[in-house]
This record gives sequence, C-alpha cells and structure tokens, in this order.
Amino acid sequence: MAKSPESEHPIKAYGYAARDSSGVLSPFKFSRRATGDKDVRFKVLYCGICHSDIHFAKNEFGRTTYPLIPGHEIVGVVTEVGNKVEKFKVGDKVGVGCLVGSCRSCASCDNDLENYCAKLILTYDGMYYDGTNTYGGYSDHMVADEHFVLCWPENLPLDSGAPLLCGGITVYSPLRHFGLDKPGLKVGVVGLGGLGHLAVKFAKAFGAEVTVFSTTPAKKQEALDVLKADHFIVSKDPEQMQSATRSLDGIIDTVSVTHPVAPLLSALKPNGKLVIVGVPTKPLELDAMSLIVGRKIVAGSGVGGQKETQEMLDFAAKHGLTADIELIPIDYVHTAMDRILKSDVRYRFVIDVAKSLKAP
Amino acid sequence: MAKSPESEHPIKAYGYAARDSSGVLSPFKFSRRATGDKDVRFKVLYCGICHSDIHFAKNEFGRTTYPLIPGHEIVGVVTEVGNKVEKFKVGDKVGVGCLVGSCRSCASCDNDLENYCAKLILTYDGMYYDGTNTYGGYSDHMVADEHFVLCWPENLPLDSGAPLLCGGITVYSPLRHFGLDKPGLKVGVVGLGGLGHLAVKFAKAFGAEVTVFSTTPAKKQEALDVLKADHFIVSKDPEQMQSATRSLDGIIDTVSVTHPVAPLLSALKPNGKLVIVGVPTKPLELDAMSLIVGRKIVAGSGVGGQKETQEMLDFAAKHGLTADIELIPIDYVHTAMDRILKSDVRYRFVIDVAKSLKAP
Repeated sequence: MAKSPESEHPIKAYGYAARDSSGVLSPFKFSRRATGDKDVRFKVLYCGICHSDIHFAKNEFGRTTYPLIPGHEIVGVVTEVGNKVEKFKVGDKVGVGCLVGSCRSCASCDNDLENYCAKLILTYDGMYYDGTNTYGGYSDHMVADEHFVLCWPENLPLDSGAPLLCGGITVYSPLRHFGLDKPGLKVGVVGLGGLGHLAVKFAKAFGAEVTVFSTTPAKKQEALDVLKADHFIVSKDPEQMQSATRSLDGIIDTVSVTHPVAPLLSALKPNGKLVIVGVPTKPLELDAMSLIVGRKIVAGSGVGGQKETQEMLDFAAKHGLTADIELIPIDYVHTAMDRILKSDVRYRFVIDVAKSLKAP
Repeated sequence: MAKSPESEHPIKAYGYAARDSSGVLSPFKFSRRATGDKDVRFKVLYCGICHSDIHFAKNEFGRTTYPLIPGHEIVGVVTEVGNKVEKFKVGDKVGVGCLVGSCRSCASCDNDLENYCAKLILTYDGMYYDGTNTYGGYSDHMVADEHFVLCWPENLPLDSGAPLLCGGITVYSPLRHFGLDKPGLKVGVVGLGGLGHLAVKFAKAFGAEVTVFSTTPAKKQEALDVLKADHFIVSKDPEQMQSATRSLDGIIDTVSVTHPVAPLLSALKPNGKLVIVGVPTKPLELDAMSLIVGRKIVAGSGVGGQKETQEMLDFAAKHGLTADIELIPIDYVHTAMDRILKSDVRYRFVIDVAKSLKAP
C-alpha cells in the first residue's frame, strides 16, 4: 500500500491543500523528503497566487491529483543544503517557480528550456522522480534540486517579487524570444491583469512603445498614468481597433477567456507576432488569410527555463521592477481566489506565508 | 465615361476572360498599355493554372472585378523593352508571378517583401497605377515594370517551370524564412497537390527528411517512390499521427479546406513551426495550450518578394527542380478547372498559350 502524504517522507511539513474539485483549501499535514545531495531546503516566506492555482485546485485541467497544495511563485530562505550543492548556503534568499524537475538530457533541457521538456515535473501536482506527488508553496517549507532553485537578487523585494516567478517569466520569455525586447519597438499587451500589468512593465523596461488592449474603458487611466503605457485601446471598439491597423511589431495576449484574434492580427505590422500566454478554455478561431497577408505568426509561450528565469529576476532587480500586489494572510486565500475570478485585484495576491501559516 | 477594356490602352490584346461569377472563361479582346520607360513587353508562352484562378473567376474572395483574365504563373519571351530598362533585352525568356506593382517605399518594399506591401498590385484583378484593371497571363502578351519581371534561368524548362512563379515561391519562401532549409531537419508537408508536391521537392532539395501528411492512403507510393519523400502518414489515422508526436521541426500546410491543426501541432518538436500556405474557407480552430506547450508557432506565408522569387528560380534551375505538369491547350481550361476541384491532376496544369490561344 502506498504511504500517506504524512508518512511517505521523513520530514514533517504542513500547508493548505484542496481535497477535491470544490477547490476549497484547508490546513493539511504532509511530509517532505530529506535533503538530498543536490537539494536545497528552505522556509517559505511568500507565495504568489496564480490563476493556475485555481484551475488546478478545481481540477479544471482534468489532471489534478488530490490532495493538492498549490503555489509556484515561492520565495524563501535556505535552512539546509545537500553535500553537493554549489550555488546556495544557509540563509540565502531563494525562489522556486513552476518547475522542480526535468529530464536534463533532451534537446529542450540541453538548450536551457526545461519548461518545454516532455518530462518536466511541475512544482505541484507533478510526480517526482521518487514516485511521490509534488506539493507547492502554500506550505511551511520546500525542498528542491538546486538546479530548479533561483538566486534571489539582493535588492528585489521578497513579497512583490514573488509573482515574477510565474507571471513575470511568462511575459518576459516571449518578449525576449520573439525579439520584442528592442528599444523603440511597438508592443501591444492584451488584458490588464496579473500577467498583463507585468507585460507592460517589462515591455517598457525594454524600451518599447506599449499599447494596452482592454475590454474595460475604466482601466485607461491606470494603464497610462500608473503603469506608464503609451496608448490604450478599448478592444471592443472597432474604430479604436481600426486606428491601430498595421502598427505593432508584436502583441503579448494574456487573456484567458476566448476572444477574437483577427482584430489583433490586423493590428500587427507585416512579420508581426501575436504571442498567446493566457489559456482560453475554448479554441481560438484563426482565419488563415489573416496570417498569410503579412506573414504573421500566432505563437504560444509557457513560463521559461531556469537560466532565463534567473536572468529575468536579475533584470527586474536592476530595473526596480516588481508586481503590484496585495499582501494577504493564508486564511484569506478563498476570498482572494473569488476576487481573482472577478478580476478584482490590482494585480496579484501574495500570501505572507511565514507570518500567517500556523502548524495544524 | 470610363473607356472599355478594348479601347483604354493603345495596344490590342486578347485572352480568355470570366465575365461573371459563373467563372466561365471565353475569348476576350482587350488592350494593354504602351511600353513605358521601365516596362518589359513579352509574348506569353506558358501560363500555369493556380487554384486561386478559380477562386477569382468565381468571385469566391468577394473582390473580383469582371471581366477577369486570370493567370499569374506566366512565362514568355521579351518583344520590346522601354528606354530605361536595365535587366532585359528583346528575346530574353522571362517570368511574371503574382505581383506587378507595389509602393516601393514602405518597410516591406524596402526589405524586398513587396508581397506584403499594403499597396501591392496583383497581376490580375488589381488596379494599376493608371487606374485601369490588371489582366493576367491567359492572354497573348503582357507588359510589366521590369522590377516585377523575373529573369528565366537558361536551363529551367519554360512549361514545367511556370508553376514555380506562384506554387513554387509559396512553399520556398516559408521554408527559407522559417529556417526550414537546413540539411537534416525534419519537415512535414500537409496535402499532396500542386503546392504540396513542390514543397516536398524543395524540402528534399534543401536536404530535409520529409514526412507527407495526406488524407488519401493511395498517395503513399507516389509520395515515397516518385516524389522521394521519406515518410508518409495518413492524417486521418490517429495511430499514425501519434507515431509522429514531437518529431518535426516544421510543417508546410498546403491544404485549402478546413482541417484540424491540433494533431499537426502535436507532431512538432518544441519550437516547431506550422506554416499555413493554403487558404481554408472557414477559420481553423486553435487550442492555445497546443501552442504554449512547446512554444510552437502557427504562421502564414504568401508567395514571396521579387528578389526571393528570382533566387527560388535560380535554385530550382540549379537543382533541376520543376513542377510535375499536364500541358493543355487553352480551350481545355474549364475541364482543367473542374479536375482541379476534384484533385484530379498530378500536379499542376500549364496552358500552352502560344500554341493554343488564337486571336478572336
């Protein structure tokens, strides 16, 4: 018989877990493995709430193994390192994002793209090499192979930096990979939520002229005055959309509900790139001619590899770039998730784990 | 009152024109402009029949101006050149593809991508700078600005080379632009018609390992033995499709009916590229996750610029690469179009214009 989450490993741990597709999270006792030779053990200080956490908690991707402890925007302080750990020592500030394992030998891994490895191991709801489930950062502590642990830059805030580990890299990586990181380029950002507000910040930090597309006219002032976007277009307004025709080098589309992409493709210059980073539940409709005229691209992108995630954190630290967050205690998590579903957050919730998670 | 096609220009011409959306072509008298300073006048020898010719003749893109003379895979021999023509002299063999004009000053034109110029002028059903309609190669002669005339390579057959001017460049350009022209890459070709058979030939000439995807199992022998593809997959067979998972660097999709793209995306390696060059009449359904997992791309591509089209012709001549054609007299054009609609042609019809088009 398989051992229980509480007894399968030697080190006691606790966190907040969903037990079924109601998605309700409650205190949960489990265990974590002993610190292996290459492992880093750390106390969790902060953990961002990603929209994916809700999808997984409610089994909306149809793959969840319960109990599920979400959380993949995890910042902490090292408490123990294995014999062969090279990058970290006790007391270091560290981060863990969406991945804690990959095959380390395929073409993707060889090219620092562990995030596209067919055998990647997710930080939660993954199966680790030892056959046990992985549990995320809504917990007292973590243990991870040092390859999947990030060095936290000295001057990057621990709390408002946490969402960079998923939300940040999700938008940074495509801006870099698709060449949208050059000063003077014209970059669109669709949707002004957790991902979108970070996309605006990174694109501006790269020197782009940024246009925000939103269905909500009320976000205009915030987009322009607070986030320093250059233009704001109400995507439901055909006249405003028309004014953007053939104007953009690329677009980062963060919207996670199904929406028309043809008007966005029209807003691209020839050779323009529409990069989808949100995950609409229904398929998008794609008219072939809207791609052919202008040799346009629709691409997807999902988080980033370890090397690039480190680069992103260092870039953010250098540019003073963090997420706009609302810091909450862990027992507020249900309310926070409800508010995320209503888009009632500017822009990301971060759980103050160290201060609010108590041993059950 | 606007002048008639027969009298609007000084030089008498004749061809085959569609008069309405029945798409029926019949002999037609019109006129062509005098040879301008930069113009090349040439007698049409051969003209390929492209599927687009049927779409335009029947107004299936909803933009046709009648009378319409189709034909944009035109090969001929120069009969007159303007004072300032530099590249051509009387007696030269030449080709004209899909374009006869563009703005020559936008970013696309500056980058030798006249095909993506917002003001491009199509070889037929376009409006020329002088306000008159353009007429295609189902006609006795053509006149075009030398910038839009290609030098015909010495050893490239005039008849079986004609389809390269649209069909050839349509597949050559994306293979080059999307980096699918490196020896040893694994390239898929979807659909084995006029475009598809050329895609196989060009991909093989670049040194790729080529997999043909077709709904028609009967095409396997032809694909492997005649066209020298390396693999053949029946795209309706889930097991065969499964066997191709994560195997290809890129796919050229030539199919012009709506079809599922998710299985094709699954056949791509991470960073793989699916390039749409066929024009399905209904939108394709695109699942965002199938792009995000593996950072995949769906792109469109439409013909090529003048410089690249010349390069393609020279490459084809060097590699002995032509279309497989059925040479027909012009009065067979209706039957030919019917047979194209039934996919009953291996693989491209070419009209022997010089031998079969008589003055009305």
